[in-house]
Amino acid sequence: MSYTQSHSFSDTLQRASGRAAGQLRPVVIHTGYTRYAEGSVLISMGETRVLCNASVLDKVPPFLKGQGRGWVTAEYGMLPRSTHTRSDREAARGKQSGRTQEIQRLIGRSLRAVFDLEALGERTLHLDCDVIQADGGTRCASITGAWVAAALAVRHLQKAGELAGNPVLDHVAAVSVGLVGQATLLDLDYSEDSGCGADVNVVMTGAGNLVEVQGTAEGQTFSRDTLNAMLDLAQAGIAQLVEEQKRALASA
Amino acid sequence: MSYTQSHSFSDTLQRASGRAAGQLRPVVIHTGYTRYAEGSVLISMGETRVLCNASVLDKVPPFLKGQGRGWVTAEYGMLPRSTHTRSDREAARGKQSGRTQEIQRLIGRSLRAVFDLEALGERTLHLDCDVIQADGGTRCASITGAWVAAALAVRHLQKAGELAGNPVLDHVAAVSVGLVGQATLLDLDYSEDSGCGADVNVVMTGAGNLVEVQGTAEGQTFSRDTLNAMLDLAQAGIAQLVEEQKRALASA
Amino acid sequence: MSYTQSHSFSDTLQRASGRAAGQLRPVVIHTGYTRYAEGSVLISMGETRVLCNASVLDKVPPFLKGQGRGWVTAEYGMLPRSTHTRSDREAARGKQSGRTQEIQRLIGRSLRAVFDLEALGERTLHLDCDVIQADGGTRCASITGAWVAAALAVRHLQKAGELAGNPVLDHVAAVSVGLVGQATLLDLDYSEDSGCGADVNVVMTGAGNLVEVQGTAEGQTFSRDTLNAMLDLAQAGIAQLVEEQKRALASA
Amino acid sequence: MSYTQSHSFSDTLQRASGRAAGQLRPVVIHTGYTRYAEGSVLISMGETRVLCNASVLDKVPPFLKGQGRGWVTAEYGMLPRSTHTRSDREAARGKQSGRTQEIQRLIGRSLRAVFDLEALGERTLHLDCDVIQADGGTRCASITGAWVAAALAVRHLQKAGELAGNPVLDHVAAVSVGLVGQATLLDLDYSEDSGCGADVNVVMTGAGNLVEVQGTAEGQTFSRDTLNAMLDLAQAGIAQLVEEQKRALASA
Amino acid sequence: MSYTQSHSFSDTLQRASGRAAGQLRPVVIHTGYTRYAEGSVLISMGETRVLCNASVLDKVPPFLKGQGRGWVTAEYGMLPRSTHTRSDREAARGKQSGRTQEIQRLIGRSLRAVFDLEALGERTLHLDCDVIQADGGTRCASITGAWVAAALAVRHLQKAGELAGNPVLDHVAAVSVGLVGQATLLDLDYSEDSGCGADVNVVMTGAGNLVEVQGTAEGQTFSRDTLNAMLDLAQAGIAQLVEEQKRALASA
Amino acid sequence: MSYTQSHSFSDTLQRASGRAAGQLRPVVIHTGYTRYAEGSVLISMGETRVLCNASVLDKVPPFLKGQGRGWVTAEYGMLPRSTHTRSDREAARGKQSGRTQEIQRLIGRSLRAVFDLEALGERTLHLDCDVIQADGGTRCASITGAWVAAALAVRHLQKAGELAGNPVLDHVAAVSVGLVGQATLLDLDYSEDSGCGADVNVVMTGAGNLVEVQGTAEGQTFSRDTLNAMLDLAQAGIAQLVEEQKRALASA
Repeated sequence: MSYTQSHSFSDTLQRASGRAAGQLRPVVIHTGYTRYAEGSVLISMGETRVLCNASVLDKVPPFLKGQGRGWVTAEYGMLPRSTHTRSDREAARGKQSGRTQEIQRLIGRSLRAVFDLEALGERTLHLDCDVIQADGGTRCASITGAWVAAALAVRHLQKAGELAGNPVLDHVAAVSVGLVGQATLLDLDYSEDSGCGADVNVVMTGAGNLVEVQGTAEGQTFSRDTLNAMLDLAQAGIAQLVEEQKRALASA
Repeated sequence: MSYTQSHSFSDTLQRASGRAAGQLRPVVIHTGYTRYAEGSVLISMGETRVLCNASVLDKVPPFLKGQGRGWVTAEYGMLPRSTHTRSDREAARGKQSGRTQEIQRLIGRSLRAVFDLEALGERTLHLDCDVIQADGGTRCASITGAWVAAALAVRHLQKAGELAGNPVLDHVAAVSVGLVGQATLLDLDYSEDSGCGADVNVVMTGAGNLVEVQGTAEGQTFSRDTLNAMLDLAQAGIAQLVEEQKRALASA
Repeated sequence: MSYTQSHSFSDTLQRASGRAAGQLRPVVIHTGYTRYAEGSVLISMGETRVLCNASVLDKVPPFLKGQGRGWVTAEYGMLPRSTHTRSDREAARGKQSGRTQEIQRLIGRSLRAVFDLEALGERTLHLDCDVIQADGGTRCASITGAWVAAALAVRHLQKAGELAGNPVLDHVAAVSVGLVGQATLLDLDYSEDSGCGADVNVVMTGAGNLVEVQGTAEGQTFSRDTLNAMLDLAQAGIAQLVEEQKRALASA
Repeated sequence: MSYTQSHSFSDTLQRASGRAAGQLRPVVIHTGYTRYAEGSVLISMGETRVLCNASVLDKVPPFLKGQGRGWVTAEYGMLPRSTHTRSDREAARGKQSGRTQEIQRLIGRSLRAVFDLEALGERTLHLDCDVIQADGGTRCASITGAWVAAALAVRHLQKAGELAGNPVLDHVAAVSVGLVGQATLLDLDYSEDSGCGADVNVVMTGAGNLVEVQGTAEGQTFSRDTLNAMLDLAQAGIAQLVEEQKRALASA
Repeated sequence: MSYTQSHSFSDTLQRASGRAAGQLRPVVIHTGYTRYAEGSVLISMGETRVLCNASVLDKVPPFLKGQGRGWVTAEYGMLPRSTHTRSDREAARGKQSGRTQEIQRLIGRSLRAVFDLEALGERTLHLDCDVIQADGGTRCASITGAWVAAALAVRHLQKAGELAGNPVLDHVAAVSVGLVGQATLLDLDYSEDSGCGADVNVVMTGAGNLVEVQGTAEGQTFSRDTLNAMLDLAQAGIAQLVEEQKRALASA
Repeated sequence: MSYTQSHSFSDTLQRASGRAAGQLRPVVIHTGYTRYAEGSVLISMGETRVLCNASVLDKVPPFLKGQGRGWVTAEYGMLPRSTHTRSDREAARGKQSGRTQEIQRLIGRSLRAVFDLEALGERTLHLDCDVIQADGGTRCASITGAWVAAALAVRHLQKAGELAGNPVLDHVAAVSVGLVGQATLLDLDYSEDSGCGADVNVVMTGAGNLVEVQGTAEGQTFSRDTLNAMLDLAQAGIAQLVEEQKRALASA
């Protein structure tokens, strides 16, 4: 993969955290965080912490009934005081925001891209991603952590002898890249995200294929070259996240 | 306080956990669990874990506007996979259950009983109690933990010089007692709670006064004597919880 | 039952109504108030009037299907102008308040405590308690009246030859007791309730066993002795209410 | 008013109640039924009973603010077991049915047609019409009863010296007429209503002017002549209802 | 049909559009407006434009299941900027207004009056009436247009050989008549409707029978004679609308 | 812009429509489609038709009040029978789907990227995008059409002398590209979209900068090279759409 990057200004911006432009925040994947879920992971990306619980449910959505295939889906929520100032509780307001629904649909699609639903059998892997503390990048952390939780739930099924094959086709992980002035920065924290002119959330497989690319101008439109520079950073970051996933699974 | 207990059968029942009838589960009050809330506590009662975050809001409900008095209120939620089997997400269903509303009203009332709302000034202490893992007694753990979170938020206001007096009048803590057969058992875990014939949730101040008593027959009505035996256990348990609160505050 | 009451200040307070501290308001249980319900009761406790209709439904909630057991449940509502000033209509607002849900759950649990659900067979007794006029104590009046309505519905089933045994195990009735200053007062009306420092709602069986105890500090925490004094008053009051229930059933 | 009625078959049909085709059910207007509302009426039309409470609110809807004019509006509800078989509680379902909204809009429009909103001053007359028992004709009984409740609330304001003029311009009352086979029948009860081919709800003033005409084919379309025959019956019935309103007001 | 019209002032009022009192706005019935619906019609009555789509659904409401009979129902909506000033989107507010529900119930009832539900077989004709542009009379235009869409859907079923008989018993169409001062005006546009003292929406069959009459005083009550004058205008207008329906079907 | 496209397989796939891989469907931008909106456009992309109405509202969201800046926002809806089979009406279900919210957020962000909100002044441009007929690509057509409607509304304000400067900074338009097997196809219709392995929705300015890139694997992950091939097609398509926008504005 080699695009000419005529604009690798990334190095010139000093990040408040002291991180290099292409440097991830410290990643910790804590497996077995809660005891009842078939797979449970607390993922930290710097100060962002998301609890990802995978539940195995012995049912599938109505449109899949009786076909012998399974389903993978996700729900997402932020605890009211996970953020710098308190947000309303969605359960109290009586509905999930558009942002919440957008994110949980993204997590579900991302995971399904690397699952063999036939091999899963007629059951649902339900991922609950709940943000305990939010410092930017919660949707990406959710995807990266949810994959580990789902893999642990699959291992649980395998140990119980309930799965013949392996429904996990590949890893999937995600990271954001932002454009701040002319600099491209990997894995934005909240204060960087607030000030950035555009950002892209990238979801990739272990094999380096794209699953989702969501690039958005936040006050600053961007060129194809800039997009490619951002994707370069994302790709390298995701490769590291996949390594963290492997380590977490190995030691779980 | 001395009621004749003609039926102290409590000792005769063997608890699965090996605990004595009047013994609390191990209590851990982890202060500063998240970083943005003005007061943040993760309280564990055995395997039950509740995150209690206190937010200071510079507003009061409409009925209090312009009176120079503050407010203390609470919201409660269970993460969908905090339980043995997954429960629906209330935000997705679009409403909070009757049980949830009952509990959050209880937490709010309990805290207000020990707060001087005039000394608090025209601001709100908003407590968010979110159950990370549920093994029985979540409403009681929420009250006990929320008090510590609220006290930390008050300390935060005091350090910032925003409070003249001390709005915290006393401790408040809560515990459940159950009736299993003829035995009264302190601080029921989930399996004990499922099998009990009646239970009582008791909320008391540090001075030993009652704030709330909620006794409920679950298949087994109970005598006044039994109620008193249960209250005896609760009172002793709450005294220990208050000690834990003090320790937590001292080391925070 | 004999607790030393070192504080029987009750007599010293003059009630606006002229009632003695331990005196109920006039109770009228009007059976057959509406004509379609299988059991219909208008209960008056002083100026509080609640219409309690019992419907026999030939279905049970999903979790009970096919088990040959029945269910008893309740719903509660206040007519918008049952109160001194008009309240919003819950159907128009689009949701039941937390208070409403709390009360209807309480009524349902209280009745189930004295029903043999197996003897009821696979049907539901659905109690609708609608407050026509509210002068305090509506939840207690609902329980006391609903029991009579339920008993009439059972009689209706028996007359129709649809019941082999008798699912009614005992009476259940309820009353409130309040703490005003140092005085304990039975069966609070609205103006007494507004001014009280603590109150307890007590639900008991005809045999004198406790079904529910809900004591709440409303600005004034209370001692175990005070709780016992309040329970003494309640117990005597409930015994009278049970007599009224018997009279009403006998003449229906 | 004299339209040639070529089809006065009305006399030939035997009504189950023994009533003549143009005969109202017994009407009872019980004033002062509840004690807190500024005007309170229980109206019975045969077995149909509707509680109509008029509340005086010191506010007007936003679109009327500051104009010195008042508003008259209504809400309608059926108690769940007012009917032969239990209906769902609208507050529990979380929304009012289309039928409910249609009826409460009708009641409000009907009353406004005979009120001088300027003479009312900047306040709202809020009518709550709650059906205690339903045997057909609840919307018509609501209008007839609500007018009396509203008039009582106006009298209450006048006695308190809060009204200079008289905002009540005329009476308003309502009745239904049905087409059963070829017969036109006044004031249908539920069993007649279920079997009728068309019906018309008519709202008229004391002066005999039309306020609302709502004719609906229920399986049987109808001619202009038939409509006129139905309106003849309605007009005579409404004149009697207006007399009942006068009697009720005079003795209140 | 001959009622003495002592007040045929209709001619004396000059309409802004230059129309005569009994003159319809230009009617255009555009069939096949969209391509997926089994019947699709854009009806214009002057500047009012409603898209009426008929869908054939292979299911019936629960209360009709297994009876071999069909159902005809309707839904109605206004695009947010169909009106002079933007209205809220009902989907965004989370509920349909009372007006919307009233209208869609009216459309459904009107169509069912001329359909043989047994001949339709166990399927539903679902009419969606969406107002693209609103200049008064949208409910009447919806009924008139929906009938054509429904007839086209029936033709679609017949061509596919799925219908033995013909479920369409007659035409149905609707128009409004208003009372402006003493003049009766046919087919009000928005500005006329805003200023009228009373109006009546009339739904009639091709045979000239009444299906619905909805007369409403909007500030001005009206006599039986006036009602008859309005019905005369409506009847003539509807006869023309039925001719337009025939023309549209013939050329579709 | 020149990326080596080692995989221009696009030409090899035969499209059902006969279109070339990089060919748009016929585009028609009908201005002035409805008469009340300040800007009104019906855009057709092949069989997809979206009505885009721009309303000028003299208010801004609360967070912008008093800052002298404006806002641009959008709502999106599909008529129930815009699709091949009927979908539920969102207003009837009582909530907008996650997909709907996702799309309307996208439209709003896309437009804001090319508007100078200060030059707009303290008013809102509210875009309503309602899908009359859906054959794929509705979100892209909405963006392309909404920009024209917004530009017309700005022209309306300018003609009325209410705008000093020009808030429109650039064009914005959108198109989808799909991956079907190894072929990349521009502007997918519904049947192509159903069968594609991945697609990307691209939003670009007139100057050729990216505003949004939303690439999604639908069963087939994709390489960076493939993404670039898709972006190449999109860029060329958007340039043509911008020309259509210019033509439409010029002739409006």
